[in-house]
Amino acid sequence: MASKVRLYVDQPLGEGQTVRLDRDQAHYLFSVMRLGPGAVLTLFNGQDGEWDAEVALADKKGGALVCRTLTRPQGSPPDLWLMFAPVKKARTDFIVEKAVEMGAARIMPVLTDYTNAERVRGDRMAAHIREAAEQCGISYLPDVTEPEKLARVLDHWPDGRRLMFCDETRLGAATSLATEPRQPWAILIGPEGGFSGGERERLAGLPYALPVSLGPRILRADTAAVAALALWQAALGDWA
Amino acid sequence: MASKVRLYVDQPLGEGQTVRLDRDQAHYLFSVMRLGPGAVLTLFNGQDGEWDAEVALADKKGGALVCRTLTRPQGSPPDLWLMFAPVKKARTDFIVEKAVEMGAARIMPVLTDYTNAERVRGDRMAAHIREAAEQCGISYLPDVTEPEKLARVLDHWPDGRRLMFCDETRLGAATSLATEPRQPWAILIGPEGGFSGGERERLAGLPYALPVSLGPRILRADTAAVAALALWQAALGDWA
Repeated sequence: MASKVRLYVDQPLGEGQTVRLDRDQAHYLFSVMRLGPGAVLTLFNGQDGEWDAEVALADKKGGALVCRTLTRPQGSPPDLWLMFAPVKKARTDFIVEKAVEMGAARIMPVLTDYTNAERVRGDRMAAHIREAAEQCGISYLPDVTEPEKLARVLDHWPDGRRLMFCDETRLGAATSLATEPRQPWAILIGPEGGFSGGERERLAGLPYALPVSLGPRILRADTAAVAALALWQAALGDWA
Repeated sequence: MASKVRLYVDQPLGEGQTVRLDRDQAHYLFSVMRLGPGAVLTLFNGQDGEWDAEVALADKKGGALVCRTLTRPQGSPPDLWLMFAPVKKARTDFIVEKAVEMGAARIMPVLTDYTNAERVRGDRMAAHIREAAEQCGISYLPDVTEPEKLARVLDHWPDGRRLMFCDETRLGAATSLATEPRQPWAILIGPEGGFSGGERERLAGLPYALPVSLGPRILRADTAAVAALALWQAALGDWA
Protein backbone atom coordinates (compact mmCIF):
# COMPACT_ATOMS: atom_id res chain seq x y z
CA MET A 1 0.00 0.00 0.00
CA ALA A 2 1.48 3.31 -1.05
CA SER A 3 1.02 5.62 1.90
CA LYS A 4 1.38 9.37 2.08
CA VAL A 5 4.78 10.78 3.01
CA ARG A 6 4.87 11.90 6.65
CA LEU A 7 7.24 14.63 7.76
CA TYR A 8 8.05 16.08 11.17
CA VAL A 9 8.67 19.84 11.07
CA ASP A 10 9.73 22.15 13.86
CA GLN A 11 7.32 24.93 12.85
CA PRO A 12 3.75 26.00 13.65
CA LEU A 13 0.99 24.29 11.67
CA GLY A 14 -2.48 25.72 10.92
CA GLU A 15 -4.83 26.37 8.03
CA GLY A 16 -3.07 28.26 5.22
CA GLN A 17 0.21 28.27 7.18
CA THR A 18 3.36 28.26 5.03
CA VAL A 19 6.11 25.85 6.07
CA ARG A 20 9.65 26.50 4.80
CA LEU A 21 11.86 23.49 4.17
CA ASP A 22 15.54 23.22 4.89
CA ARG A 23 17.96 21.62 2.46
CA ASP A 24 17.74 18.12 3.98
CA GLN A 25 13.96 18.12 3.98
CA ALA A 26 13.87 19.41 0.40
CA HIS A 27 16.31 16.70 -0.68
CA TYR A 28 14.16 14.03 0.99
CA LEU A 29 10.84 15.21 -0.46
CA PHE A 30 11.89 16.26 -3.95
CA SER A 31 14.85 14.00 -4.79
CA VAL A 32 14.26 10.85 -2.70
CA MET A 33 10.45 10.74 -2.64
CA ARG A 34 10.15 12.62 -5.99
CA LEU A 35 7.28 14.86 -4.92
CA GLY A 36 6.56 17.90 -7.09
CA PRO A 37 4.39 21.04 -6.84
CA GLY A 38 0.82 20.16 -5.89
CA ALA A 39 1.74 16.86 -4.21
CA VAL A 40 0.13 16.32 -0.81
CA LEU A 41 1.91 15.00 2.25
CA THR A 42 1.30 14.73 6.00
CA LEU A 43 2.94 17.11 8.49
CA PHE A 44 3.14 17.01 12.28
CA ASN A 45 5.08 19.05 14.81
CA GLY A 46 4.17 17.42 18.12
CA GLN A 47 1.70 20.17 19.06
CA ASP A 48 -0.77 21.16 16.36
CA GLY A 49 -2.11 17.79 15.19
CA GLU A 50 -1.62 16.16 11.81
CA TRP A 51 -2.10 18.21 8.63
CA ASP A 52 -2.39 17.59 4.93
CA ALA A 53 -0.01 20.02 3.25
CA GLU A 54 0.64 20.77 -0.39
CA VAL A 55 3.96 21.38 -2.08
CA ALA A 56 3.88 25.05 -3.14
CA LEU A 57 7.51 25.42 -4.18
CA ALA A 58 9.96 22.62 -4.92
CA ASP A 59 13.55 23.76 -4.87
CA LYS A 60 16.75 21.83 -4.28
CA LYS A 61 17.90 24.29 -1.65
CA GLY A 62 14.59 24.55 0.17
CA GLY A 63 11.05 24.99 -0.98
CA ALA A 64 7.74 25.56 0.75
CA LEU A 65 4.59 23.72 1.77
CA VAL A 66 1.16 25.11 2.59
CA CYS A 67 -1.04 23.51 5.27
CA ARG A 68 -4.52 22.66 3.99
CA THR A 69 -6.59 20.44 6.32
CA LEU A 70 -6.30 19.11 9.87
CA THR A 71 -6.52 15.34 9.36
CA ARG A 72 -6.09 14.20 12.98
CA PRO A 73 -6.07 16.02 16.30
CA GLN A 74 -2.83 16.05 18.28
CA GLY A 75 -2.21 12.65 19.89
CA SER A 76 -0.12 11.76 22.90
CA PRO A 77 1.36 8.52 24.17
CA PRO A 78 0.62 6.88 27.54
CA ASP A 79 2.83 8.33 30.32
CA LEU A 80 5.52 5.66 30.04
CA TRP A 81 9.28 6.03 30.24
CA LEU A 82 11.68 3.50 28.77
CA MET A 83 15.00 3.36 30.65
CA PHE A 84 17.76 1.26 29.12
CA ALA A 85 21.50 0.79 29.47
CA PRO A 86 23.13 1.85 26.19
CA VAL A 87 24.79 -1.03 24.39
CA LYS A 88 26.56 -1.20 21.06
CA LYS A 89 25.62 1.54 18.64
CA ALA A 90 23.48 -0.53 16.27
CA ARG A 91 21.53 -2.10 19.14
CA THR A 92 20.98 1.30 20.75
CA ASP A 93 19.57 2.53 17.43
CA PHE A 94 17.19 -0.43 17.42
CA ILE A 95 16.09 0.16 21.00
CA VAL A 96 15.29 3.79 20.20
CA GLU A 97 13.36 2.88 17.04
CA LYS A 98 11.44 0.16 18.91
CA ALA A 99 10.64 2.43 21.87
CA VAL A 100 9.03 4.93 19.51
CA GLU A 101 7.00 2.29 17.64
CA MET A 102 5.89 0.75 20.93
CA GLY A 103 4.64 4.09 22.27
CA ALA A 104 7.11 5.23 24.94
CA ALA A 105 6.70 8.90 25.89
CA ARG A 106 10.28 9.32 27.12
CA ILE A 107 13.48 7.48 26.23
CA MET A 108 16.15 7.51 28.93
CA PRO A 109 19.65 6.06 28.57
CA VAL A 110 20.84 5.09 32.07
CA LEU A 111 24.32 3.96 33.06
CA THR A 112 24.37 0.86 35.26
CA ASP A 113 27.25 -0.83 37.06
CA TYR A 114 27.77 -3.21 34.12
CA THR A 115 27.13 -0.68 31.35
CA ASN A 116 29.96 -0.61 28.88
CA ALA A 117 29.65 3.14 28.64
CA GLU A 118 30.14 3.77 24.97
CA ARG A 119 29.33 7.39 24.22
CA VAL A 120 25.64 7.96 23.48
CA ARG A 121 25.15 10.44 20.68
CA GLY A 122 22.14 12.64 21.41
CA ASP A 123 21.89 13.94 17.84
CA ARG A 124 21.89 10.41 16.48
CA MET A 125 19.16 9.35 18.92
CA ALA A 126 17.06 12.43 18.04
CA ALA A 127 17.33 11.67 14.31
CA HIS A 128 16.26 8.07 14.91
CA ILE A 129 13.30 9.20 16.99
CA ARG A 130 12.14 11.60 14.27
CA GLU A 131 12.43 8.97 11.57
CA ALA A 132 10.62 6.32 13.61
CA ALA A 133 7.84 8.78 14.47
CA GLU A 134 7.37 9.65 10.79
CA GLN A 135 7.26 5.96 9.91
CA CYS A 136 4.98 4.60 12.64
CA GLY A 137 2.22 7.16 12.23
CA ILE A 138 2.38 9.14 15.49
CA SER A 139 2.02 12.90 15.74
CA TYR A 140 4.33 13.51 18.73
CA LEU A 141 8.04 13.02 19.33
CA PRO A 142 9.04 11.11 22.47
CA ASP A 143 11.47 13.02 24.72
CA VAL A 144 14.99 11.81 25.04
CA THR A 145 17.11 12.57 28.10
CA GLU A 146 20.86 12.85 28.60
CA PRO A 147 22.49 9.64 29.88
CA GLU A 148 22.50 9.55 33.68
CA LYS A 149 23.62 7.06 36.30
CA LEU A 150 20.86 4.67 37.35
CA ALA A 151 21.60 5.36 41.02
CA ARG A 152 21.06 9.08 40.45
CA VAL A 153 17.81 8.54 38.57
CA LEU A 154 16.53 6.45 41.48
CA ASP A 155 17.72 9.08 43.99
CA HIS A 156 15.41 11.60 42.30
CA TRP A 157 12.49 9.31 41.50
CA PRO A 158 9.23 11.26 41.06
CA ASP A 159 6.28 10.61 43.37
CA GLY A 160 3.46 8.61 41.87
CA ARG A 161 5.46 6.81 39.15
CA ARG A 162 5.78 3.01 39.19
CA LEU A 163 8.84 1.15 37.90
CA MET A 164 8.66 -2.18 36.09
CA PHE A 165 12.10 -3.73 36.01
CA CYS A 166 12.94 -6.71 33.92
CA ASP A 167 14.80 -9.13 36.12
CA GLU A 168 16.29 -12.12 34.38
CA THR A 169 16.66 -14.02 37.63
CA ARG A 170 12.95 -13.88 38.34
CA LEU A 171 10.33 -16.29 37.02
CA GLY A 172 6.62 -16.17 36.52
CA ALA A 173 5.58 -12.62 37.34
CA ALA A 174 4.61 -11.54 33.83
CA THR A 175 0.87 -11.83 34.17
CA SER A 176 0.55 -9.82 37.37
CA LEU A 177 0.69 -6.57 35.36
CA ALA A 178 -3.03 -6.75 34.55
CA THR A 179 -3.98 -6.03 38.16
CA GLU A 180 -1.66 -3.01 38.48
CA PRO A 181 -3.10 0.51 38.56
CA ARG A 182 -3.11 2.74 35.48
CA GLN A 183 -0.77 5.57 36.40
CA PRO A 184 2.59 6.91 35.21
CA TRP A 185 5.08 4.09 34.78
CA ALA A 186 8.68 3.49 33.73
CA ILE A 187 10.21 0.33 32.32
CA LEU A 188 13.85 -0.47 33.06
CA ILE A 189 15.78 -2.86 30.81
CA GLY A 190 19.11 -4.04 32.20
CA PRO A 191 22.40 -4.15 30.34
CA GLU A 192 23.37 -7.34 28.49
CA GLY A 193 25.52 -8.36 31.48
CA GLY A 194 22.54 -8.02 33.84
CA PHE A 195 22.16 -5.82 36.90
CA SER A 196 24.83 -5.93 39.60
CA GLY A 197 24.01 -7.52 42.94
CA GLY A 198 23.80 -4.09 44.55
CA GLU A 199 21.49 -2.75 41.87
CA ARG A 200 19.22 -5.77 42.06
CA GLU A 201 19.00 -5.43 45.83
CA ARG A 202 18.17 -1.74 45.65
CA LEU A 203 15.57 -2.24 42.91
CA ALA A 204 13.92 -5.12 44.78
CA GLY A 205 13.56 -2.94 47.87
CA LEU A 206 11.89 0.03 46.18
CA PRO A 207 8.22 0.34 47.16
CA TYR A 208 7.28 1.58 43.67
CA ALA A 209 9.15 -1.14 41.77
CA LEU A 210 7.68 -4.30 40.25
CA PRO A 211 10.03 -7.04 39.04
CA VAL A 212 8.74 -8.75 35.89
CA SER A 213 10.05 -11.91 34.27
CA LEU A 214 10.65 -12.09 30.53
CA GLY A 215 10.90 -15.86 30.50
CA PRO A 216 13.60 -18.51 30.74
CA ARG A 217 15.72 -17.48 27.74
CA ILE A 218 18.40 -14.80 27.68
CA LEU A 219 17.10 -11.83 25.66
CA ARG A 220 19.19 -9.18 23.98
CA ALA A 221 18.46 -5.70 25.27
CA ASP A 222 16.48 -4.63 22.19
CA THR A 223 14.36 -7.80 22.28
CA ALA A 224 13.72 -7.29 26.01
CA ALA A 225 12.66 -3.68 25.40
CA VAL A 226 10.01 -4.63 22.83
CA ALA A 227 8.77 -7.57 24.92
CA ALA A 228 8.44 -5.47 28.09
CA LEU A 229 6.73 -2.62 26.24
CA ALA A 230 4.28 -5.11 24.65
CA LEU A 231 3.30 -6.58 28.04
CA TRP A 232 2.83 -3.11 29.50
CA GLN A 233 0.86 -1.69 26.56
CA ALA A 234 -1.46 -4.71 26.46
CA ALA A 235 -2.16 -4.59 30.20
CA LEU A 236 -1.98 -0.90 31.10
CA GLY A 237 -1.38 1.19 27.99
CA ASP A 238 -3.19 2.17 24.82
CA TRP A 239 -3.47 -1.40 23.46
CA ALA A 240 -5.76 -2.41 26.30
CA MET B 1 29.63 -11.31 33.51
CA ALA B 2 31.92 -13.62 31.55
CA SER B 3 29.83 -16.62 30.63
CA LYS B 4 30.89 -19.99 29.30
CA VAL B 5 31.10 -20.42 25.54
CA ARG B 6 28.08 -22.35 24.18
CA LEU B 7 28.37 -24.35 20.98
CA TYR B 8 25.82 -26.27 18.94
CA VAL B 9 27.26 -29.47 17.45
CA ASP B 10 25.60 -31.95 15.12
CA GLN B 11 27.03 -35.00 16.92
CA PRO B 12 25.99 -37.34 19.75
CA LEU B 13 26.79 -36.16 23.29
CA GLY B 14 27.32 -38.41 26.33
CA GLU B 15 29.77 -39.01 29.15
CA GLY B 16 33.30 -39.46 27.79
CA GLN B 17 32.10 -38.91 24.22
CA THR B 18 34.67 -37.32 21.88
CA VAL B 19 33.42 -34.52 19.65
CA ARG B 20 35.46 -33.63 16.55
CA LEU B 21 35.44 -30.00 15.44
CA ASP B 22 35.36 -28.75 11.88
CA ARG B 23 37.54 -25.90 10.70
CA ASP B 24 34.94 -23.16 11.37
CA GLN B 25 34.24 -24.39 14.91
CA ALA B 26 37.97 -24.66 15.62
CA HIS B 27 38.53 -21.13 14.34
CA TYR B 28 35.72 -19.82 16.55
CA LEU B 29 36.84 -21.63 19.72
CA PHE B 30 40.62 -21.33 19.44
CA SER B 31 41.20 -18.10 17.48
CA VAL B 32 38.14 -15.95 18.26
CA MET B 33 37.35 -17.11 21.81
CA ARG B 34 40.99 -18.05 22.52
CA LEU B 35 40.23 -21.31 24.33
CA GLY B 36 43.10 -23.75 24.81
CA PRO B 37 43.50 -27.36 25.96
CA GLY B 38 41.69 -27.97 29.26
CA ALA B 39 39.21 -25.11 28.77
CA VAL B 40 35.59 -26.00 29.49
CA LEU B 41 32.64 -25.01 27.33
CA THR B 42 28.97 -25.93 26.94
CA LEU B 43 27.73 -28.19 24.15
CA PHE B 44 24.23 -29.01 22.95
CA ASN B 45 22.90 -30.89 19.94
CA GLY B 46 19.15 -30.53 20.32
CA GLN B 47 18.70 -34.09 21.66
CA ASP B 48 21.08 -35.09 24.43
CA GLY B 49 20.83 -32.16 26.83
CA GLU B 50 23.53 -29.65 27.72
CA TRP B 51 27.04 -30.86 28.52
CA ASP B 52 30.23 -29.44 29.93
CA ALA B 53 33.00 -30.45 27.57
CA GLU B 54 36.76 -30.00 27.78
CA VAL B 55 39.12 -29.04 25.00
CA ALA B 56 41.28 -32.15 24.42
CA LEU B 57 43.04 -31.05 21.25
CA ALA B 58 43.24 -27.50 19.88
CA ASP B 59 44.23 -27.39 16.25
CA LYS B 60 43.64 -24.75 13.60
CA LYS B 61 42.21 -27.28 11.19
CA GLY B 62 39.98 -29.04 13.71
CA GLY B 63 40.55 -30.29 17.20
CA ALA B 64 38.54 -32.36 19.66
CA LEU B 65 36.43 -31.97 22.78
CA VAL B 66 35.51 -34.56 25.39
CA CYS B 67 32.10 -34.48 27.11
CA ARG B 68 32.36 -34.51 30.89
CA THR B 69 29.11 -33.75 32.74
CA LEU B 70 25.45 -33.36 31.85
CA THR B 71 24.64 -29.87 33.16
CA ARG B 72 20.98 -29.63 32.06
CA PRO B 73 18.50 -32.13 30.68
CA GLN B 74 17.26 -31.61 27.13
CA GLY B 75 14.79 -28.70 26.97
CA SER B 76 12.09 -28.00 24.44
CA PRO B 77 10.10 -24.89 23.54
CA PRO B 78 6.32 -24.52 23.74
CA ASP B 79 4.60 -25.83 20.58
CA LEU B 80 4.47 -22.45 18.84
CA TRP B 81 5.10 -21.61 15.19
CA LEU B 82 6.06 -18.15 14.01
CA MET B 83 4.86 -17.43 10.48
CA PHE B 84 6.09 -14.23 8.86
CA ALA B 85 6.29 -12.67 5.41
CA PRO B 86 9.96 -12.25 4.52
CA VAL B 87 11.01 -8.63 4.20
CA LYS B 88 14.37 -7.07 3.48
CA LYS B 89 17.35 -9.24 4.30
CA ALA B 90 18.47 -7.45 7.47
CA ARG B 91 14.94 -7.38 8.92
CA THR B 92 14.46 -11.07 8.11
CA ASP B 93 17.68 -11.80 10.01
CA PHE B 94 16.29 -9.88 12.97
CA ILE B 95 12.96 -11.69 12.88
CA VAL B 96 14.75 -15.05 12.91
CA GLU B 97 17.03 -14.02 15.78
CA LYS B 98 14.06 -12.67 17.76
CA ALA B 99 11.91 -15.75 17.11
CA VAL B 100 14.64 -17.95 18.61
CA GLU B 101 15.13 -15.72 21.67
CA MET B 102 11.39 -15.53 22.21
CA GLY B 103 11.01 -19.32 22.15
CA ALA B 104 9.35 -20.23 18.85
CA ALA B 105 9.59 -23.95 18.05
CA ARG B 106 9.24 -23.50 14.27
CA ILE B 107 10.02 -20.55 12.02
CA MET B 108 8.02 -20.40 8.80
CA PRO B 109 8.50 -17.84 6.02
CA VAL B 110 5.17 -17.46 4.22
CA LEU B 111 4.49 -15.55 1.02
CA THR B 112 1.46 -13.26 1.16
CA ASP B 113 -0.22 -11.24 -1.58
CA TYR B 114 1.82 -8.17 -0.64
CA THR B 115 5.10 -9.98 0.08
CA ASN B 116 7.93 -8.48 -1.87
CA ALA B 117 9.31 -11.94 -2.48
CA GLU B 118 13.01 -11.41 -2.13
CA ARG B 119 14.72 -14.80 -2.14
CA VAL B 120 14.94 -16.31 1.35
CA ARG B 121 18.25 -18.03 1.91
CA GLY B 122 17.75 -21.18 3.95
CA ASP B 123 21.44 -21.53 4.82
CA ARG B 124 21.55 -17.96 6.08
CA MET B 125 18.46 -18.53 8.24
CA ALA B 126 19.89 -21.78 9.64
CA ALA B 127 23.15 -20.05 10.59
CA HIS B 128 21.22 -17.26 12.34
CA ILE B 129 19.13 -19.80 14.23
CA ARG B 130 22.23 -21.66 15.44
CA GLU B 131 23.93 -18.48 16.55
CA ALA B 132 20.84 -17.18 18.36
CA ALA B 133 20.34 -20.55 20.09
CA GLU B 134 23.97 -20.55 21.30
CA GLN B 135 23.56 -17.01 22.57
CA CYS B 136 20.17 -17.20 24.31
CA GLY B 137 20.88 -20.33 26.33
CA ILE B 138 18.53 -22.90 24.80
CA SER B 139 19.48 -26.51 24.11
CA TYR B 140 17.31 -27.09 21.00
CA LEU B 141 17.26 -25.58 17.52
CA PRO B 142 13.91 -24.33 16.23
CA ASP B 143 12.88 -25.84 12.88
CA VAL B 144 12.82 -23.68 9.82
CA THR B 145 10.60 -24.48 6.84
CA GLU B 146 10.91 -23.62 3.14
CA PRO B 147 8.97 -20.48 2.12
CA GLU B 148 5.42 -21.38 1.11
CA LYS B 149 2.37 -19.41 -0.01
CA LEU B 150 0.12 -18.42 2.89
CA ALA B 151 -2.93 -19.74 1.03
CA ARG B 152 -1.28 -23.15 0.72
CA VAL B 153 -0.29 -23.23 4.38
CA LEU B 154 -3.91 -22.50 5.32
CA ASP B 155 -5.18 -25.15 2.87
CA HIS B 156 -3.21 -27.77 4.82
CA TRP B 157 -3.72 -26.43 8.34
CA PRO B 158 -3.26 -29.15 10.98
CA ASP B 159 -6.14 -30.11 13.25
CA GLY B 160 -5.91 -28.82 16.79
CA ARG B 161 -3.62 -25.85 16.13
CA ARG B 162 -4.84 -22.30 16.80
CA LEU B 163 -3.69 -19.28 14.80
CA MET B 164 -3.13 -15.84 16.30
CA PHE B 165 -2.93 -13.30 13.53
CA CYS B 166 -1.83 -9.76 14.08
CA ASP B 167 -4.32 -7.51 12.38
CA GLU B 168 -3.41 -3.86 12.23
CA THR B 169 -6.98 -2.84 11.51
CA ARG B 170 -8.26 -4.38 14.73
CA LEU B 171 -8.30 -2.70 18.13
CA GLY B 172 -8.51 -3.89 21.68
CA ALA B 173 -8.24 -7.66 21.53
CA ALA B 174 -4.82 -8.05 23.10
CA THR B 175 -5.92 -9.11 26.55
CA SER B 176 -8.27 -11.86 25.44
CA LEU B 177 -5.32 -14.25 25.02
CA ALA B 178 -5.30 -15.07 28.73
CA THR B 179 -8.58 -16.98 28.46
CA GLU B 180 -7.50 -19.06 25.44
CA PRO B 181 -6.66 -22.74 25.86
CA ARG B 182 -3.10 -24.00 26.13
CA GLN B 183 -2.60 -26.04 22.98
CA PRO B 184 -0.46 -25.86 19.84
CA TRP B 185 -0.52 -22.36 18.35
CA ALA B 186 0.90 -20.40 15.46
CA ILE B 187 1.46 -16.65 15.24
CA LEU B 188 1.17 -14.93 11.86
CA ILE B 189 2.82 -11.55 11.28
CA GLY B 190 1.74 -9.75 8.13
CA PRO B 191 4.04 -8.10 5.61
CA GLU B 192 4.89 -4.40 6.02
CA GLY B 193 2.17 -3.53 3.48
CA GLY B 194 -0.44 -5.43 5.52
CA PHE B 195 -2.63 -8.34 4.48
CA SER B 196 -4.71 -8.03 1.29
CA GLY B 197 -8.48 -7.73 1.56
CA GLY B 198 -8.89 -11.33 0.43
CA GLU B 199 -6.38 -12.62 2.97
CA ARG B 200 -7.94 -10.66 5.79
CA GLU B 201 -11.37 -12.00 4.91
CA ARG B 202 -10.15 -15.59 4.77
CA LEU B 203 -8.25 -15.27 8.06
CA ALA B 204 -11.21 -13.67 9.83
CA GLY B 205 -13.45 -16.56 8.77
CA LEU B 206 -11.21 -19.38 10.01
CA PRO B 207 -12.67 -21.11 13.08
CA TYR B 208 -9.19 -21.66 14.57
CA ALA B 209 -7.98 -18.07 14.04
CA LEU B 210 -7.86 -15.30 16.63
CA PRO B 211 -7.20 -11.70 15.48
CA VAL B 212 -5.08 -9.77 17.96
CA SER B 213 -4.35 -6.06 18.00
CA LEU B 214 -0.83 -4.74 18.48
CA GLY B 215 -1.99 -1.23 19.24
CA PRO B 216 -2.59 2.01 17.34
CA ARG B 217 0.91 2.53 15.92
CA ILE B 218 2.31 0.95 12.76
CA LEU B 219 4.93 -1.64 13.76
CA ARG B 220 7.72 -2.92 11.59
CA ALA B 221 7.52 -6.67 11.02
CA ASP B 222 10.38 -7.50 13.42
CA THR B 223 8.86 -5.34 16.17
CA ALA B 224 5.46 -6.96 15.64
CA ALA B 225 7.01 -10.43 15.84
CA VAL B 226 8.61 -9.77 19.25
CA ALA B 227 5.49 -8.03 20.59
CA ALA B 228 3.18 -10.87 19.50
CA LEU B 229 5.52 -13.53 20.86
CA ALA B 230 5.74 -11.68 24.19
CA LEU B 231 1.94 -11.52 24.57
CA TRP B 232 1.62 -15.21 23.72
CA GLN B 233 4.47 -16.37 25.98
CA ALA B 234 3.16 -14.36 28.94
CA ALA B 235 -0.40 -15.67 28.56
CA LEU B 236 -0.01 -19.19 27.20
CA GLY B 237 3.67 -20.10 26.94
CA ASP B 238 6.60 -20.76 29.23
CA TRP B 239 6.65 -17.27 30.77
CA ALA B 240 3.27 -17.84 32.37
